[in-house]
Amino acid sequence: MEPVTTPKARQASLREHNLGLVARAVFGAERPPSRAAIAAATGLTRATVSTLVDQLVGARVVRELPPEPGNVGRPAVPLVPASRTVVGLGLEVNVGYLGVRAVDLAGDTVVERIERGDFHASDPAVVLPRLADLAREVVAGLDAEGVRVAGARLALPGLVDVRDGHLVVAPNLGWADLDPVPLLGPLRAADDIRVRIANEANLAGLAQLRFGWFAGDRAGDGDVLADVAERSATEAPDLARGGTTFVYLSVDVGVGAAVLLEGALYVGRRGWAGEIGHVAVEPDGPLCQCGARGCLEAVAGKLALLAAFGRGPSDDLDVDEIAVRAAAGDPEVTDVLERVGTFVGRALAAVVNVLDVDTLLLGGLYATLADALHGPVVDELRRRVPALPERLVVAAAPVVDHAALTGGARAVLRDVVRTPSAFVGASTTVSPADTTERAHP
Amino acid sequence: MEPVTTPKARQASLREHNLGLVARAVFGAERPPSRAAIAAATGLTRATVSTLVDQLVGARVVRELPPEPGNVGRPAVPLVPASRTVVGLGLEVNVGYLGVRAVDLAGDTVVERIERGDFHASDPAVVLPRLADLAREVVAGLDAEGVRVAGARLALPGLVDVRDGHLVVAPNLGWADLDPVPLLGPLRAADDIRVRIANEANLAGLAQLRFGWFAGDRAGDGDVLADVAERSATEAPDLARGGTTFVYLSVDVGVGAAVLLEGALYVGRRGWAGEIGHVAVEPDGPLCQCGARGCLEAVAGKLALLAAFGRGPSDDLDVDEIAVRAAAGDPEVTDVLERVGTFVGRALAAVVNVLDVDTLLLGGLYATLADALHGPVVDELRRRVPALPERLVVAAAPVVDHAALTGGARAVLRDVVRTPSAFVGASTTVSPADTTERAHP
Repeated sequence: MEPVTTPKARQASLREHNLGLVARAVFGAERPPSRAAIAAATGLTRATVSTLVDQLVGARVVRELPPEPGNVGRPAVPLVPASRTVVGLGLEVNVGYLGVRAVDLAGDTVVERIERGDFHASDPAVVLPRLADLAREVVAGLDAEGVRVAGARLALPGLVDVRDGHLVVAPNLGWADLDPVPLLGPLRAADDIRVRIANEANLAGLAQLRFGWFAGDRAGDGDVLADVAERSATEAPDLARGGTTFVYLSVDVGVGAAVLLEGALYVGRRGWAGEIGHVAVEPDGPLCQCGARGCLEAVAGKLALLAAFGRGPSDDLDVDEIAVRAAAGDPEVTDVLERVGTFVGRALAAVVNVLDVDTLLLGGLYATLADALHGPVVDELRRRVPALPERLVVAAAPVVDHAALTGGARAVLRDVVRTPSAFVGASTTVSPADTTERAHP
Repeated sequence: MEPVTTPKARQASLREHNLGLVARAVFGAERPPSRAAIAAATGLTRATVSTLVDQLVGARVVRELPPEPGNVGRPAVPLVPASRTVVGLGLEVNVGYLGVRAVDLAGDTVVERIERGDFHASDPAVVLPRLADLAREVVAGLDAEGVRVAGARLALPGLVDVRDGHLVVAPNLGWADLDPVPLLGPLRAADDIRVRIANEANLAGLAQLRFGWFAGDRAGDGDVLADVAERSATEAPDLARGGTTFVYLSVDVGVGAAVLLEGALYVGRRGWAGEIGHVAVEPDGPLCQCGARGCLEAVAGKLALLAAFGRGPSDDLDVDEIAVRAAAGDPEVTDVLERVGTFVGRALAAVVNVLDVDTLLLGGLYATLADALHGPVVDELRRRVPALPERLVVAAAPVVDHAALTGGARAVLRDVVRTPSAFVGASTTVSPADTTERAHP
């Protein structure tokens, strides 16, 4: 007979499972839990929890705060994610810059390097080694401080096939059919930092999670995908918490989106979900670089904005100036943004109609223009979504500063929290360091 | 501190968890497993599996086939879902009919009643008691045969709020702001059959699952919602099996969709996902009943088809005749379907761009017209989806005959397989019956 599907928890060893359970209890808590609170929440014995917490503390994944006197018994020791001990590395090549950012388990940026440039129609065999040089500097500094690098994610503005991890095409870089990781080369001599690639908009979307940023696991409870008949008011997932189900719009020359459902990135069959830039908003409109007419990207991307203001495709677009003029009521600007906002609203209406999401975050160029775009976007949503959410949020994305770097680093750290056992096992090879010391400046 | 999130498996008792594990092992297997095979697949001991299987057999959820001689030891007894012992009840009110269908754990229809009528602008206080009468006849017949009714789902063509289970609006019935369950009244004297409501397109979509129709659980492993960086070729969920990730289009006067992701229905924040009928495909086109212009429903729904053929809104639409004329190359028909197919392709292109799905099933009126619509739909998808799936499937839905009834019954049976313990506990109150006898004709 065929093998019967087995839950993952059973495939993994019990210790590994429990270690992940305890790690998620620390990282998922809104307030720092004690060992006793973790035991109560997980159903594990206090002795087991203590052993596992000690391992996580020893591996510098979790940190103990000073004890707080409890009502009964010994003072409770609150547990929090460790600071400046373990980092994920976000890497990015985009049209206007190269970037490297190290983010720690507490969610703070420890060190970053951004190098501006024009990488439109560039050579990956030149650009990726440059990025690798930046990354090696960062890694060397972290190594010197005793900060461990758990892995790296390379964000690219294009279609990444998640099944085999190759870049299918990044039109605005002029790259196609490429495995970028070998071109980077090793990020340190030992060549032990694993690099994986992902779509820029997806990682930037991941950076927007406000609560429980590694919370992808929670979707694993089946809440998001619950059968319609399963749901009730009390079961409705996360409505009170908010902020974990949203569509994030990434806008530059290309227009993409990330679809976040209950804290988990939805990537689709091949990883190409979120291609909102090619939703038809003006079907007989101008040609898009994809060959179709009236795609959102063709009428509302950076090149369309430049053209609307009488600039050429290689000119700079000063969104700050546009935002100031819009706020002052400059009719040339408000006319353009009214039109662009209507198109954005039309594409988002399709998304809201199909996915029933209530939070739409404007990122990239639109983040700066969010105040001016808000009115026309919401007007078009009201026209085109019969089942409009009561609480509709259309707002600038909270993280706009190279968000894909933060998202890439977080994606690495999610893995640490999900399966800390691999990481705990490796901890003996790294020399301990004061967790409060300042890392590489 | 706040309670820490706990996996559901830990909240439930171990027995309940294991019983569900064994039930899913039987229902999820492609070939009937033996007790030994279930033990190997679940990691439970053979003794535990035997006890749990005996309980499922006793509750007539699982049935034993005649033993097959094995290579070593005692002959293995293959286990299959029981036939004609336990049913889910699908109920439906739609514009043209009332329906009741009982489906058993083996997936077969045991009994059904369909009553045709015109329920456009009808009174729910009249229509729902009529449906309840039909259902009571069906239930009485099942009771007489010793077939247990596990519950019922009422499919309605409108927006159902999954948070509190009320109907927000069903425009084509003329119903709004309604809790339909009390109007049905009890389906048997004991009033112990729980009825819940759901959207018609969602339930019809659920009926299309080809493999593992209760497989919503599998999405709970987090496969669908996996972080982009999690995926690899070997981990890509279910690509080989296929048939569990698709968008199902439900087309009558209203146009809706069901979004199935790895066997699980995606319903959105409030249960209103899949409202593809209001995606703008001709933004300056004709007015839709929702008030917007150029919605898919307005240019490609039943009323638009009737108008295109010079008929009035209350005339019958003979889709069989249209299909025959299209196959014969009648230019009047092919022109209309070319135009309709282009609009359908445009709305589906938005869905494929955003969700990266490769299987699009045409249901309702479109099922009959699928051959004629296929060309224009695929042409528009090719124009408008830069990342078109290699294996694109645009086809008539496999289950078209009142599919929401089958989907509703299956939704009930999924719950039985997910949490059989509640059901096993209740089995003593029902008299046993020969599992092979014929139920109510």
